[in-house]
Parts: sequence; C-alpha cells; structure tokens
Amino acid sequence: MAHNVLFGNIAQDLATEELYKKAQTENIETLWDRKAALKSQCGFGEQGVCCRICTMGPCRVSPIPGKGVQRGICGATADVIASRHYARMVAGGVAAHSDHGRNIAHTLHMVSSNGRYQVRDDKKLLEVAARWGVSVEGKDINAIAQQVAEMALNDFGKPFGNLTLPGSVPDQRKKVWEENKILPRAIDREVVTIMHATHMGCTADAESMVNLAMRTSLTDGWGGSFIGTEFSDILFGTPVPREIEANLGVIQTNMVNIVLHGHEPVLSEMIVLASEEPEMKALAVKAGADGINLVGMCCTGNEVTMRHGVKIAGNFHQQEFAVLTGAVEAVIVDVQCIFPALATLTQCYHTKFITTSPLAKITGAIHVEFNEKDAFESAKRIIREAVENFHNRKPEKILIPQIKSQGMVGYSNRAIIGQLDRVVNSYTHKSGSFEPLAQCLVSGVLRGAVGVVGCNNPKVKSDYGHIEIIKKMIANDVIVAVTGCAAQAAAKAGLLSKEAVQYCGEGLRKVCELADIPPVLHMGSCVDISRILELVGEVAKILNLDMSELPVVASAPEWMSEKAVAIGTYAVSSGLDTFLGVTPPVTGSPEVTDILTNRMENWVGGKFYFETDPLQAAEKMLARIEEKRANVEKLNIQRMCVTGYDELSPGF
Amino acid sequence: MAHNVLFGNIAQDLATEELYKKAQTENIETLWDRKAALKSQCGFGEQGVCCRICTMGPCRVSPIPGKGVQRGICGATADVIASRHYARMVAGGVAAHSDHGRNIAHTLHMVSSNGRYQVRDDKKLLEVAARWGVSVEGKDINAIAQQVAEMALNDFGKPFGNLTLPGSVPDQRKKVWEENKILPRAIDREVVTIMHATHMGCTADAESMVNLAMRTSLTDGWGGSFIGTEFSDILFGTPVPREIEANLGVIQTNMVNIVLHGHEPVLSEMIVLASEEPEMKALAVKAGADGINLVGMCCTGNEVTMRHGVKIAGNFHQQEFAVLTGAVEAVIVDVQCIFPALATLTQCYHTKFITTSPLAKITGAIHVEFNEKDAFESAKRIIREAVENFHNRKPEKILIPQIKSQGMVGYSNRAIIGQLDRVVNSYTHKSGSFEPLAQCLVSGVLRGAVGVVGCNNPKVKSDYGHIEIIKKMIANDVIVAVTGCAAQAAAKAGLLSKEAVQYCGEGLRKVCELADIPPVLHMGSCVDISRILELVGEVAKILNLDMSELPVVASAPEWMSEKAVAIGTYAVSSGLDTFLGVTPPVTGSPEVTDILTNRMENWVGGKFYFETDPLQAAEKMLARIEEKRANVEKLNIQRMCVTGYDELSPGF
Repeated sequence: MAHNVLFGNIAQDLATEELYKKAQTENIETLWDRKAALKSQCGFGEQGVCCRICTMGPCRVSPIPGKGVQRGICGATADVIASRHYARMVAGGVAAHSDHGRNIAHTLHMVSSNGRYQVRDDKKLLEVAARWGVSVEGKDINAIAQQVAEMALNDFGKPFGNLTLPGSVPDQRKKVWEENKILPRAIDREVVTIMHATHMGCTADAESMVNLAMRTSLTDGWGGSFIGTEFSDILFGTPVPREIEANLGVIQTNMVNIVLHGHEPVLSEMIVLASEEPEMKALAVKAGADGINLVGMCCTGNEVTMRHGVKIAGNFHQQEFAVLTGAVEAVIVDVQCIFPALATLTQCYHTKFITTSPLAKITGAIHVEFNEKDAFESAKRIIREAVENFHNRKPEKILIPQIKSQGMVGYSNRAIIGQLDRVVNSYTHKSGSFEPLAQCLVSGVLRGAVGVVGCNNPKVKSDYGHIEIIKKMIANDVIVAVTGCAAQAAAKAGLLSKEAVQYCGEGLRKVCELADIPPVLHMGSCVDISRILELVGEVAKILNLDMSELPVVASAPEWMSEKAVAIGTYAVSSGLDTFLGVTPPVTGSPEVTDILTNRMENWVGGKFYFETDPLQAAEKMLARIEEKRANVEKLNIQRMCVTGYDELSPGF
Repeated sequence: MAHNVLFGNIAQDLATEELYKKAQTENIETLWDRKAALKSQCGFGEQGVCCRICTMGPCRVSPIPGKGVQRGICGATADVIASRHYARMVAGGVAAHSDHGRNIAHTLHMVSSNGRYQVRDDKKLLEVAARWGVSVEGKDINAIAQQVAEMALNDFGKPFGNLTLPGSVPDQRKKVWEENKILPRAIDREVVTIMHATHMGCTADAESMVNLAMRTSLTDGWGGSFIGTEFSDILFGTPVPREIEANLGVIQTNMVNIVLHGHEPVLSEMIVLASEEPEMKALAVKAGADGINLVGMCCTGNEVTMRHGVKIAGNFHQQEFAVLTGAVEAVIVDVQCIFPALATLTQCYHTKFITTSPLAKITGAIHVEFNEKDAFESAKRIIREAVENFHNRKPEKILIPQIKSQGMVGYSNRAIIGQLDRVVNSYTHKSGSFEPLAQCLVSGVLRGAVGVVGCNNPKVKSDYGHIEIIKKMIANDVIVAVTGCAAQAAAKAGLLSKEAVQYCGEGLRKVCELADIPPVLHMGSCVDISRILELVGEVAKILNLDMSELPVVASAPEWMSEKAVAIGTYAVSSGLDTFLGVTPPVTGSPEVTDILTNRMENWVGGKFYFETDPLQAAEKMLARIEEKRANVEKLNIQRMCVTGYDELSPGF
C-alpha cells in the first residue's frame, strides 16, 4: 500500500498526480479543470428538485418544505420530482447493464465449433442450462448454448410471466419480493414501465415510484447483469486466480500500448486473441516496438484482467491520464463511462481514439464498427491501427510514471470455492461449497463481509473513499469483495495482494492465510456484482437465512453513474444495506430521502446510508454489521454443541 | 366559432376564463398561478444544456459556442448534452405510448365470448390478422384475437428481427429507413437502447444520437401506437361519425358528473358500460340526481367520444377547471397527463379524485386499482364512489359556465372512406378507397392536408395556437386532421362542426359539402395519430409517391410532453415536416438545432420547424405545402388526358 499517503489534491495514487502536473505544464485540460470551470453546481439539480420531464418546465421547486416554490406547473412536489428522477436513474442503469447482458447472450447464440466465439466453459454452460430448464441430453454443446441463449433473450422481452430467477435467490427473499410486489417481469418491459410511469402526469407518489424502481432494479442484478456474467464465463472462461499489475506504470515505453476501455468483453476478448497472433506481433516489431502491450481500463479492463491477466492501466478517472503519458498508441472503447473529452485530448498526442459500438459513437473519434460476425478481423483491423501509429510518437511528450502495484484477480465464485476447499474440514464441511465461509461468518472469525464497488467521482478525491473504507473493513475482520473501479483502486493500492494481510485483523488474516487469498477479492466488472449476489444468496441458503439477515453490507464510496443507482437499488432490494459516499440527488425531497434511508428497511430489510465521509461511513458499516450479526450469533448458539470448527472458528 | 375572440390572458375559451376568475375569487391555485410563481424558468434547462445523467454533475454548459463553460466534467459539449436529452424525451414518449398499446394487446388477449372484453369489430380483426400473418381459417374469433395479440406482444420484446410494419408504409419509405439504418427492432428494445446509448460515457455524437432516437420513434407511430389504435378498434369498435358537445358547459347541475381523464380506453369503456346499467342509474336517482353524466378529458375523453359520443369536458389545461365548477363528483384517471395538483385541488371541493393504474398512483388520491380481469365490477365500484358523493356537493360553490359547442367526431379511416364513397365517380374511382382524397390533392382542389395535434402548454395561451393554425389552414383549402388536445381545442371552437365550412376556402368547402364532413376531422386520441400515418401512407401508395412527397405537414402548436417529441420524431422520420409551436430544449446546441431543422430533411425528407408564433407558423406551413405540391402537380400533368374529375377537381 505504497501510495496510501494523502498527497496532492486529486487522486490517491501518485501516478495520476504526476501526470496531472504534466497536464498542467502542457496546458492540457482534464476533468479536474472542467470541474473547476463549472464553479458551483446547480443546487436544484444536486438535490433532485429540478424537473425537465415536460416542456411546461423546467420547473425548479424549493428543497425546503414550506419555503419558496413548492410545486411545479403540473403540481409536482419535490417528492414527486425527486422520486421520478431517481426512478429514471435506475432505468438508465438497468438499461445499460442489461443491454450488456443481451449483447453477450446474442454472442452466445452465435457460437460454433469452428467460429471465433466458442463455448470455453462447458461445465458452466451445463450449470446454466439447468437453471434455464434446457434439457441437454444427446445435444451438441453449441445447440445447448444456442438454446440457453434463446431462453435468456426471451427474458428480456417475454410478454407474460416473471423474470427467471437464479437458484441463488433464497425462498425468503422471493417471498419478500412477492409481498412488496417487486417480483419483476421481463427486463426491457420493466425499463419501459419506469419510462412510462415517470412520464408527465403518471406516478406522483414517492413510495409507489420507488417501489417500481426497486422492481426494475432487480431485473439488472438478478437478470441482465447475471446473464452477462454467466454467459461471459461460458464464452470466455470462468475466471481463476492470477497475479496482475495495476496503475499507469504498466504502460511500457518500448511497446505498442493499447488501452482497452469500456465495458463489454465481446470485443476485448477478440483483441486479446488477435494481439497474440504472430502476425500482429511481427507487425509491431516491424514498426520498431518490442511487441504489443494491452492494458485495461474500467470494466473492459476488469473483464480481460479477470480472464487473461491483462494489466490494469487504471480506473475511470485515469482515462485521460493514460493518454497524457504520450505513450498510448490507441484507446479502444466499446460502451459506457467513456469521456467524450478523449476525442479532443487524443488530438493533443499521437493517440488514436477508436470507437467501435453503434451505441457509443463519439464526435472526433475514429469509428471502426465492431461486428461480432467478423469479430477476429475487426479486432485485427483495430490493432493494426494502433501498431501503425507507433512511429507517430513524440518522445519529448512521453512520461510514464514508474508506479504500479501487484495483486491477485480472478475470484469468480468457482474460484472462491476452490480456495475454500483448501480449508475444508471433512468432519463438518462439504467440499465444493461456501460452507466454510458461512461458518466463519457464524462463528465470528469473520465479523462480516462487504462489497465495495462503483466509480470515481470528482466530488471525492479519486480512490480515497474506496481505499479508506476497504482498509477499515479488513482491519476489523470484515472480508471485502470488490468490482469495477473500486477493484482497480484496490489493485493500485496493493490491497489485492496477499501481503495485504498485514493490514487485517486477526480473524481475517488467519482465514486469508489458510485459504491462500488476499483479504480483498477482485470479483470482476460492475456487471459481475451478480457474482456477489450469488455468493451472498448461496451463503444465506446454507444458513437458512434471508440475505438481509447476514452481516453483509455494500458500499459505493465514489459512485457517479446511473448504473450505480441501479446496483444500489437492487442491492438494497436484495436485503443489503448500501452505503453511498456521494449523496444521490434526492435530498430536496424529505420523503424520498426517508424512503431510501429508512422506510425501505421495513419493506426489504435493507436501506441506503448517505455518508460522504469514508471514515464515518466505515464506522457505520461496522456498526451495522455488528447489529446484523445477531442473526448469525443465534445460529452459533444453536450449534454450540457441534465441534470441529476450531481451526477456522476460534470464537467457539 | 363563438369563442374565437382574443379574451383574457390564459385561454382561448371563455369557459376556462370564467372559472379562472372563480379560482381567483376563491383563492384556489391553478397551473397559471404555479407558472407565475416560478418566475423565470431555468435557461440552461430550456435550451437543453444542463446534464444530470451522472452525479459528477449537474453540469451546465454555455449555449453560446466559444463563450463560457463549453464542456461538462466528462467533456460532453452542448451538442452531446442536448442530443442525449432529446433522445431521452423520445424514449419517454415511446415508452408511454407503447405501453398503452401493450396494455390494449394484453386486453385483446383476454377476450372471450361471455367476458366483458369481446371482439366488437370482427372485420377489423380479420384485417389486422392478415397483416400479422395469422391464419384465420376454421378458427374461432377469440382464438384469432388471442393469436393476433400474441403476435403483437412479441413485437414488443422479440430478440431477433425488425418491427412488423403495417402494410401502409410505402416501399419507398421502407427503403429510406433501411438506408438510414432506422428500421426499428422490437419496441421495448429500442427504448432500452436509447436509455443505454444516453448513459454516461456512451453516445457523444449528435447525429448518431438523433439517428438512434429516430429509429426508436418509429416503434411508436408504426408500432406501439398503431397496435394501440388497431386493437382498440377491434375491442371497442371502429369509430363512426357522430355528433358531440364540448367544453365545460357539458357538466350538468342535476347529474352525477364523472370526469374520465387520462389516456387508455380499457377502463373508460367499462365505465361507459357500467354507467348504462339500470342499477347504476337507479343509484344516482336514489342519491337525488337525474342520472349519471360521463364527460371526457384529454385522450381518455377522446377515446370515449370517438366510440360512444361521450361529451368532451375539455383538454389538458382544463383538468383543474372542471373541478372548479364544484359540480364534479369524481375525476377518474388512468395514466399520463394527470396533474398531481388534482389531489390537493379536489380536497377544496367535494370531488373525489380516483386513480386506477399502478403506474400512476398519486399522493392524496383515492386509489381503486382497476383490474382487467374484474373490469366491470371495478368500473361499478368506481361509479358508486362518485354517486355516493353527490350529496356532498356544496351548492354555493357551483359554477358551470354555460358554454359548449357542437361538432362531429369519429373519423376513423374506415369512416373517412365511408364519406369518400359518397362522392365516388364510378368512371374513375374505386369505392372503398382514399382515391378521391388523393385526387383532390393532385388536382389542387385541396392544396394539402395537415395534422394538428398535441397538448396545451402555458407557454402559449391555451388553444390559441391550435385554433389560429387550424383556421388559417382551412381558409387556404388545406384539410385538417386533429387528435388529442388539439382536437378538443377545435371542438370547443366549433371547428369540428359541419358549419365550419363557412371558414373554408372554396375547394375545401366544396369537398366538405360533397363528402358531408367538417373541414377538421377528429381522428381520435394521441395514439390515434397512427390513423393519420395510415391515411398518409395509403394516399402515398395510391399516388406511388413517398410520404415525404405529399403536400402534407404536421403541427404541434402547444406541445409539452415527451410523447409529443416521440410523435414529432416519427412524423419527421416518416417524411412529414413538423411545425413545433413550443421550441424544444435543444437550442443551446447549434448542431442539434441544425440536425432537427435542416439535416434531417436530407436523411428522411422531412424536418422540424420551430416557430412560436402560430400565424407565422401557418404561413410557413402553407408555403411548405405549396413547395411539396410540385410532386403531385407532376402527376396532375401526367394525367391531364384523363377526364372525369370535374366535380371534385375543378382545377382540371
């Protein structure tokens, strides 16, 4: 954790700080400059009390009850306006994640034995086929894959019935959803429902609005994202633990550096394959480089690091700083979280900025449309663009901070079970299950578990929130699962390394050493939060508890995107308290604030906490975990007569 | 056209003005007071340069190129921000309309011979079955209906293939859509695509964004709305011409007055049926009234006036004024365009405000959930609520302006053909077709046709824009089709009456007299703009022209809702110039403005005009019609040798 000193003003990591100085010297604009230029941000917008849903408006109402304008022209109150905006954020997030899942499903539908997209994980396919009720007997693996893909694709648009829920949802949870009328229907339909219900003159009741948003959010976590993860594992392999490097120091002077940025693995997998072709390597050497160096950014980076160990250049806030090294030949993007600013920034360097998705064309970028049917050739075409750009480098503009960290990635649930199998006590535990983890939670050797996820947001010094919360968790024997930009923050801070046990409390340290894991498990991209849901659901089932009864909470210390709102909402709807380090734009409505941070608990056993100070947030998370421990402590007492947990459960 | 004097400040019609004075006397707040309380509206919002898509923001950029903040934190420019907002408006509108269509399709799926929902128009069902490729031979009518419903429902969510286009789309138009890559896929999928593509870090290119929005919009006009109209006609009957009354004077002192407000016919049809039950009438008499008086508002009002002649109480801006009469026992609403303000307003009177849809619950309303499976009982329960409220009236609070107009409604395309059959010249025209209308356009006896549609918006004096434009059109021999609140404005102004021929130019007058129609044809609710599309498509096919080549334009003089943006976009994408009387929030982006008002024409042969002065707009519309007449004039010359059009085509 070399970079854990409060340094500079913008980022926890020194690589970014170093390049920020370069940017200032070269008079290059970055997000921090744009943030400063905005001066103050609109208070109505920040508090969620500005409505632009119809053009009678914009209507800005007062965030203070009884003072100032209390209603928009149609009569919408702050509660109505903020709740609709909240629901639309959920819809935007669900749409993004689920469309990602749909894209993977369409890719799975294309598999063939001699094609570029093949079933790489037969075992996973068969597991998934079982959950979709697809009979496999006597069928070719590709035929099974196609049928599974069709079943999943139907879940996006079927006119009747509910979302096909994964088996990991405990029965108690399903009952909660039924009782609250939030058992979702088809994925796309729920998004459309929100867009309809938030239309001018529809839902004007904050509780009803949030309820609809909760239903929709579930189609993300347990639907689109779940499908995205499962099908990516089938297509590209279920991740296994591997060591990687992270931070901008992974960019190499003597290599053709290609940044893979965005979210989906469909293109990046092909680029990884294509980059390994002798033909491509030879081209790079011919261009004067030693070879091709793929580095990842944001969730595309997470996808390829999880499955191929591709090095992590950085997270969301580093996308501009990677270009600022002057040593990046191409930034290749697919969808989501891509700064349009990259188009003008890359023009200050030799870097080619290549967009590939019809859903994310960017003015000023080179658009090379990626076509799954012609995937490998598309990928080679894109790499060629980068290689041919190597000679355009301007050596005087190059500055690669020599800063990077080592860490472990690849903790799919199968991989976690693999690690747990190392400590199975044959007397009490089955192998191939999360039972040892469950028992660690029951006994208290682990006080609890936390998912730390989400983005960067310039309202927080980059990565500061992530790192402070993670450190506090592991110091207090709370095991941490990370995804997305939070995972990359942890990687840069050295917290994905097994050596990070030095920062752990005694219980967690012992568990890590025995299971041979770091205390912070990189579980993948943001859609892979579905892995965390699955894990929590399975542990709950083992203990015959609802998910909300476990000492497990979620944290998004630096979130910024609508996807994060969707994630937070499905996490809470799944019973997990969720701590937000950036206050969502609802505080202008006392009612929506109360619903999210209070009433939701009565409905689904989880709620939001808004806490912008990460140290305070960490305290509250620990307190909440201890509070929830009562449910598992009961089990502990019930099982006092059982022995055999000595090794992992010193609390007995 | 008694009320066509510029009077007062808020509305073209005197009934509203009269009740506005009452509101002021009673110190009751209306939309006009809330509009005044807002003082100035946010300029960033009005110009579309405020982005709240992620919580790095809100980011407000300057609407002036080169001056002030030019980019949001991610680098989004005014062009990016405005184009995303525009696309999201389209998505919201498409979602609302299409969800309406879906609801009707689900209702059609429920038909049975002894149920409350039955096939009322077998002929229409068979026509529609043919378009969906459903074989009908030897099948029970209900089985056909169910299969048709299933086909349509699949179009909302099917994972593969394109939207099933109605046969009225000319081949030329399909080709334009293919060339522009805007041939849409499944309806819900396109909405989700927009929500994804507008997510933080996705599409940042205004042309690409508008292109995606255009594709999505087509799923409304030719998909969701089309299905909504067709299936409503099957279920509740295809409208035929009938005389009705309109304006707040239709509320009656001695009756239990029930306002039906919202959009969908599913509930209101049942209320009409239930209100005719002797049991219900007896209840009303027992309560001291002479009976039950159903009156309609907004599109629910249009649905029931088109099919049952239910009187029109008013349009969007009159929803509060109906309550202000003090004589309304209940306002019953389903979805869309419902002021949340009705909840507090009705509490100032005895009026019960009853919400019925899970998508439009409103704080302070009585929620009686309408259940299609128990439709008739639900409807009776709701009516009973109203009847039981009759004795709570406060006579001293009652003021019903004695103002109403007569007019004709019910001009479905079948009805229009029925009227045209009256003037068929057997020598040249087939009966049962739009051919006479087509030939009137060719010959110039009608200079063109205009659809005047859309809402009210307090940025325009209520109905003023509608009425001025309609008057100018008919005076210049342009026939007018109206739907939605524009239709109700026309009704109130007496323009739906056959006597309105007095305001027409010679050609139109003659056509109206011969065909026995008013010069302004009420074609239904806003989803029924699909009728106008069908009509224009069929006329284009008759003339072997593309829709964009006809002297036909669209106008939304007082639009306010996202649905209107969806409609405008599908109209333009279908080749119809669309004149907006309220400037959409895009003017902060020179590029988006240029795309909408200029470049779109190169893509699809139609574009938007922003013109807030209705008289100016009318001039431009007429000029544009004359310009487009060149295409039909050519045909005229080609056909000069053909005789027999004397009666209808004095231009020959």
